[in-house]
Amino acid sequence: MPILNKDMTLCISLAARPSNLGTRFHNYLYEELGMNFIYKAFTTSNIEDAIAGVRGLGIRGCSVSMPFKEAVLELVDVVEHSAAAIESVNTIVNNDGVLTASNTDYEAVADLIARYQLDPSLPVLVRGSGGMAKAVVAAFHGAGFADVTVLARNSEAGEALATKYGYRAVSVDPQPGHAVIVNVTPLGMAGDAADELAFTPDHIRAAQTVFDVVAFPAETPLIRAARDAGKLVITGAEVIALQAAAQFVRYTGVTLTPDQIARASAFSRE
Amino acid sequence: MPILNKDMTLCISLAARPSNLGTRFHNYLYEELGMNFIYKAFTTSNIEDAIAGVRGLGIRGCSVSMPFKEAVLELVDVVEHSAAAIESVNTIVNNDGVLTASNTDYEAVADLIARYQLDPSLPVLVRGSGGMAKAVVAAFHGAGFADVTVLARNSEAGEALATKYGYRAVSVDPQPGHAVIVNVTPLGMAGDAADELAFTPDHIRAAQTVFDVVAFPAETPLIRAARDAGKLVITGAEVIALQAAAQFVRYTGVTLTPDQIARASAFSRE
Repeated sequence: MPILNKDMTLCISLAARPSNLGTRFHNYLYEELGMNFIYKAFTTSNIEDAIAGVRGLGIRGCSVSMPFKEAVLELVDVVEHSAAAIESVNTIVNNDGVLTASNTDYEAVADLIARYQLDPSLPVLVRGSGGMAKAVVAAFHGAGFADVTVLARNSEAGEALATKYGYRAVSVDPQPGHAVIVNVTPLGMAGDAADELAFTPDHIRAAQTVFDVVAFPAETPLIRAARDAGKLVITGAEVIALQAAAQFVRYTGVTLTPDQIARASAFSRE
Repeated sequence: MPILNKDMTLCISLAARPSNLGTRFHNYLYEELGMNFIYKAFTTSNIEDAIAGVRGLGIRGCSVSMPFKEAVLELVDVVEHSAAAIESVNTIVNNDGVLTASNTDYEAVADLIARYQLDPSLPVLVRGSGGMAKAVVAAFHGAGFADVTVLARNSEAGEALATKYGYRAVSVDPQPGHAVIVNVTPLGMAGDAADELAFTPDHIRAAQTVFDVVAFPAETPLIRAARDAGKLVITGAEVIALQAAAQFVRYTGVTLTPDQIARASAFSRE
């Protein structure tokens, strides 16, 4: 068995409640590619100390999840456009003590919109207003979508997000009829909300494409209902794999093939 | 192969120039004992940030080597007697954010003095005045040795160390005749000083016991000369294995058998 050695490069993640997905995704590929790297998820009760540790220990890469995506903006040295535009960071790269923040969630969603050739003339309904919703709405805006509605129970946050791009915000379910519906809330995620359907059956019926950002499980009630109704589905498993692959490139300099991403994603979810 | 998981407990070391010994020692035992721990050596250019990282990332244990053994005293919450007495830390344990410093080098040397039944009435010559020399001199003092001479080229540091225990300091080689001679300098260590003999042949000839704290290689020129002369030898390999075993207990709560320590030590030196 390969015993760790002192020269391994460490990459980490920081989240209030870490999952095992990133740890398994990255370590699987380090192993397959024979790279002298290790990756491990951490939680923290002090984000300033944790980021000081990234500097002080020479940790090469740091993935950032809820609820730290905004707070780390002030703790890094350089903020790339992908993170600055949405004021939300999910990736920090440490180049000899210079910390650069970016947002590969934004890139992954933009990539999927292009890959599935979603038509920018279609009306979109996005449910959610947190850090990930910012990335999603910005990606739709970047892809040229003009008709986007943000549905957020927190009407202040929904307004702020929608207004930034000239979109509309609502705090209660609008009439069905959006061709693209996107869930960016934890509804359907493993845990307390596992059984919750993020959109009504009428909204699903009226849509062409159903996009759920919930990564675990990938087959949320929303995705299952959309599959049953014969809709095009885009899952959170795709988002998380693509964003992790984008982090992998930034941390290691190695670009992954679609096959490698698929294998690592499958392994991460076992 | 065992892929890392998010729940693994991380222990680290901090040194200007890390060796692989600790990383291999601890990980070997985690593997053998089936413990969900990992250990990795780090270097740092900012010890404050590194210790902040120990707190912020919930790193369970942190071994401290040159040149950080004194500086970390001010960065921890509790200093145990073993470290406070010599103002030198080589071990930090993190209990839910409370950092406790101790010195297992001191404990290891004290253990070896007892194990080899060194007679406290014998005259001792200790060469060196750094952090590790403090641990060695304190351990001889703790074992009741009354006649100890500290040989240090840095006469100020040597005086300070010797005076603390009512011992004598010299900055040039004293007359041979000490029954116990102890090297606590890097002379004989792999690198630039690998060929250097820490004591003169006359000093070796006059001794009963030759103790070299240099850990890598264990067979320094001093140890080889002492073996050739039929002296009792105590090597740095024994010190580092015992002090690492003492850290292992503190970090994991698991006490090691002499066999386990010997196997891990042998593996660490491969």
